[in-house]
Amino acid sequence: MLEKLIQQIEFLKEIDQLKLVLRQTLICGGERRENSAEHSWHLALAATTLAEHANEPVDISRVVKMVLLHDIVEIDAGDTFIYDDKGNEDKAEREQIAADRLFGLLPESQKDEFMAVWHEFEARESADAKFANAIDRLMPLLHNIMAKGGSWQTHGINRAKVDTLTPKIRDGSETLANFVNQILDDAVEKGYLSA
Amino acid sequence: MLEKLIQQIEFLKEIDQLKLVLRQTLICGGERRENSAEHSWHLALAATTLAEHANEPVDISRVVKMVLLHDIVEIDAGDTFIYDDKGNEDKAEREQIAADRLFGLLPESQKDEFMAVWHEFEARESADAKFANAIDRLMPLLHNIMAKGGSWQTHGINRAKVDTLTPKIRDGSETLANFVNQILDDAVEKGYLSA
Repeated sequence: MLEKLIQQIEFLKEIDQLKLVLRQTLICGGERRENSAEHSWHLALAATTLAEHANEPVDISRVVKMVLLHDIVEIDAGDTFIYDDKGNEDKAEREQIAADRLFGLLPESQKDEFMAVWHEFEARESADAKFANAIDRLMPLLHNIMAKGGSWQTHGINRAKVDTLTPKIRDGSETLANFVNQILDDAVEKGYLSA
Repeated sequence: MLEKLIQQIEFLKEIDQLKLVLRQTLICGGERRENSAEHSWHLALAATTLAEHANEPVDISRVVKMVLLHDIVEIDAGDTFIYDDKGNEDKAEREQIAADRLFGLLPESQKDEFMAVWHEFEARESADAKFANAIDRLMPLLHNIMAKGGSWQTHGINRAKVDTLTPKIRDGSETLANFVNQILDDAVEKGYLSA
């Protein structure tokens, strides 16, 4: 028992590093870049709050677990900007190596369990994973709107580019995808996002 | 439906502010102070990882929900340092006002649900709440040890003072409380914590 506990504590100490992984997204007031740990917290509460809008019934406790775990691989693999085509080419490979090391700190049965949850998120096939991915795509849009453009402006992202993400939101929630279309129209009108 | 969704989105935008609430605890490498949003993420994964060590069987999805929500009131009420006796005198009152405003942004049924979860955490009576509180007490100890003293040294906290927290860990998990005693002995020996 003590040996298992020590492995679990080592894992928990190691994943603290996710607080140092910076995303391109700014926090809502635009003060600074968001880190992947606080982003994961925000997603977990967003999924909890918005669960009723999922296309299919979801097991919200599984969705929450997915979003809490989904970015841990970034500790080794770094955050890959969603519009970085080159960085996304070898993302899966880099992240699998990271997952092997990080989840490998845990006792065997938990390693397998967490790895399976992460793979399920990445595969975007189950209802839970589709909804979790929809929430992961939704939140940065809200942040950019609150920061009056945020990373859209820093990186010269236009409406057409943002629209390439909408199908992944629609896969998990038609309601949220329709809502996103409205707020993006509004963001273009206000000049936060170029047409 | 749209009206409900707009209320939910307003709540999610507002709670982003938790990322700006700084705790006394340093992140594990000691680089900077931890914020309450990333702290809540860490607790959620710590509860998930350590669930088997709870004294009584817990519903881990409820424990996770509690720790994700437990600090939201700090957006208005601020973080009260656990050893600040004066600040803790009116903490409950300040936090209830904050909860009324923040959870009040949500649709009625969700407001009631989130408020109940938060009250349950604060009351520390149910098995789920006892375990959630144990995890909330455990994690800063690990952080201080990793930062070779951290907020213990900044605030002149000694072993006797830290030991006043152990009963709340023991309430949720005998195993974790025993483990804490060992790592505190070790911290004193290494000079991270004064005897």
